[in-house]
Amino acid sequence: MKATGVVVEHNPFHNGHFYHIKESRKKTAADIIIAVMSGNFLQRGEPALVDKWSRTEMALKAGVDIVIELPYVFATAQASDFARGSITLLEALECEAFCFGSEEGTIEPFTRSYDVLTTQQEAYQNSIKQYMQLGLSYPKALNEAYSDITTHLNLPLVDLSKPNNILGYHYIETACQMQAHIKPVTIQRIVANYHDNVDQDQSIASATGIRKALFDDGSIEALGKFMPHTSLEQLLKWKDSIGVFGSWQQFWPLLRHTIIRSSTKNLASYAEVTEGIEHLIHEAARECETFEDFMSRVKSKRYTWTRIQRMLTHIYTGFTWESLKEHQKPTYLRVLGMTQNGQKYLSEKKKNLSLPLVSRVAATKDSLLDLDIHASDLYQLGLQSPKIKQPVGMDYRKPPIIL
Amino acid sequence: MKATGVVVEHNPFHNGHFYHIKESRKKTAADIIIAVMSGNFLQRGEPALVDKWSRTEMALKAGVDIVIELPYVFATAQASDFARGSITLLEALECEAFCFGSEEGTIEPFTRSYDVLTTQQEAYQNSIKQYMQLGLSYPKALNEAYSDITTHLNLPLVDLSKPNNILGYHYIETACQMQAHIKPVTIQRIVANYHDNVDQDQSIASATGIRKALFDDGSIEALGKFMPHTSLEQLLKWKDSIGVFGSWQQFWPLLRHTIIRSSTKNLASYAEVTEGIEHLIHEAARECETFEDFMSRVKSKRYTWTRIQRMLTHIYTGFTWESLKEHQKPTYLRVLGMTQNGQKYLSEKKKNLSLPLVSRVAATKDSLLDLDIHASDLYQLGLQSPKIKQPVGMDYRKPPIIL
Repeated sequence: MKATGVVVEHNPFHNGHFYHIKESRKKTAADIIIAVMSGNFLQRGEPALVDKWSRTEMALKAGVDIVIELPYVFATAQASDFARGSITLLEALECEAFCFGSEEGTIEPFTRSYDVLTTQQEAYQNSIKQYMQLGLSYPKALNEAYSDITTHLNLPLVDLSKPNNILGYHYIETACQMQAHIKPVTIQRIVANYHDNVDQDQSIASATGIRKALFDDGSIEALGKFMPHTSLEQLLKWKDSIGVFGSWQQFWPLLRHTIIRSSTKNLASYAEVTEGIEHLIHEAARECETFEDFMSRVKSKRYTWTRIQRMLTHIYTGFTWESLKEHQKPTYLRVLGMTQNGQKYLSEKKKNLSLPLVSRVAATKDSLLDLDIHASDLYQLGLQSPKIKQPVGMDYRKPPIIL
Repeated sequence: MKATGVVVEHNPFHNGHFYHIKESRKKTAADIIIAVMSGNFLQRGEPALVDKWSRTEMALKAGVDIVIELPYVFATAQASDFARGSITLLEALECEAFCFGSEEGTIEPFTRSYDVLTTQQEAYQNSIKQYMQLGLSYPKALNEAYSDITTHLNLPLVDLSKPNNILGYHYIETACQMQAHIKPVTIQRIVANYHDNVDQDQSIASATGIRKALFDDGSIEALGKFMPHTSLEQLLKWKDSIGVFGSWQQFWPLLRHTIIRSSTKNLASYAEVTEGIEHLIHEAARECETFEDFMSRVKSKRYTWTRIQRMLTHIYTGFTWESLKEHQKPTYLRVLGMTQNGQKYLSEKKKNLSLPLVSRVAATKDSLLDLDIHASDLYQLGLQSPKIKQPVGMDYRKPPIIL
């Protein structure tokens, strides 16, 4: 059986994701699609709309065969670490290819850019540093440095000002550095850009647009044309059983309490909190009643929205720099769900996999896994939903979903 | 002007407190009554029903002339430290006497007991330790050890199984150890015992009984016969402007999040958390949806309810063993409110006071005071009241109440 990997968040699953799965299968002639999926906190540094179980069900019902959790440490990390975690897992799962959506649409510009930057590594890194000293955020600095190096080359290189291209670049970088067997493939993203609002005349909208529409209108049904009906049903089921969707707005009372309770010295110990921003974070939390107010107080040219949200995620879960340093690579393959086809693939490969398969968390001792369980517990509390009547510790009780 | 001190919590102010103030004034022929009052967290280890400002207003309207805040470190401490903080403040305020309510009602048995225990200090402490090793809580062990030492003496000693006698004993102990000028006086507590429920045929009820009636019935008006009308008005005003009363039930979502977010190692760093109880606290918080369930999981013969609640207070505010060790004595006199008479007294004495008077917090740098401000902020957040529209930091904005 031939497997192709994809790296996803599905927050929530929509028609663009459906297209991505279908095209990945077609383009690589895959028997099995394996998705490495982020848990309850995402790369943009925010709590997921619905939990990993609900999103796993969405994925399995729309063409994915196996869902593996990307551990918290990598799921909430900057692009290069996020990519390292993801590709390591897909390689360990013996996927023959991995397929990512990009603005670029073909793989050659990625590999060519990687070659150029590798040969000019030192000049490139110095240039990034210089731009950052001028007050630019990391992605902007990177982009300027990249332009400086590549403009005179007159080669078809990848445009690294596009968010999915950046991620794609890091996938290629990781695969090359690991000397992975897995083969990179890319497909062109269609229609919706990353941050685009929902356009009722289109059937493809970005997840960001869908979330915005959901929070603005509160109507789930209106989103039906942007996602498979199985995903819509999942959203409705969540709304019915939990009552609220995950967001920093929802988590704000607990996040705010956590920030104010901490000393600034303590805040600075959490991953990604640097350069004295802990003082601003502490002061803004004291002053601001809402998450929106808080963000507009903290946001500056220096840091992207995403970067600040990642700091907040780590403050919320208590994840420190020290712990970040300790966890450089995934150490297990946690199965969140699978189809019967997926199950067959895993039984076939089980003995050859280079990382242990985890389906029962209670039977596994692993400090990286402890962080996932911890993050899940805090996600459940953050919802502050009176409808949730069960104690935390869902990860201990819930076996993989089998479809 | 002659001042008499009292040590109070007024949670809430009731007829028993009114009697205490009136009798204290009469018995000591005082011109001025100075109350040292706990802030927003109390000696039983719980958040106050209404905040310190509201309770200050109750006190001033019912006969107290000056209200001084007992700093968090002492207000939430075991009896001996609570007494040390209180008496130190009253001595610094140049009170000629302090007057406490006790089950005993006369001062001689207290001083006699102090003399007996001081001369047999070592045997007494060893005996307490031995009883604790048998699994008794500290107050029970103390009481048994005290019985062993005193039964054969055939002297009129104080009965240390009574909560107000215990506190009274520690006041005397502190005053003696400090060689304080302040003279101890006691008056007999009338009618209601510490934990008694509200009895509609009596006009005196304990504060515990009143709080219970308030949370059980939710009716404030029914409490009118147990408190001065000015206190009742204050409760109604609070209910109207804040909407909820302080309690661990109300604070539970934030307390629970704080416990679950912490590692057990971290929990053990907070004041009063000892002997591995952090594991039980962590486990119980994960399992229990409500504060009641949590307490019934954690409660054992080994620890009193009050002791456990004090641990929770320190976990909630992030107050560590280390910080406890750093703060052995009050370092300022924080004025929460005063009558014009009280103001006159303070201007008269200002130059001779052995501790600095603090009326504007923003102008003062003191690490002990920082803890009070921090506790106030977390109290405000704990209420989780959508009616509170102001940022935290009330302590910076609010000048002393002047009546």
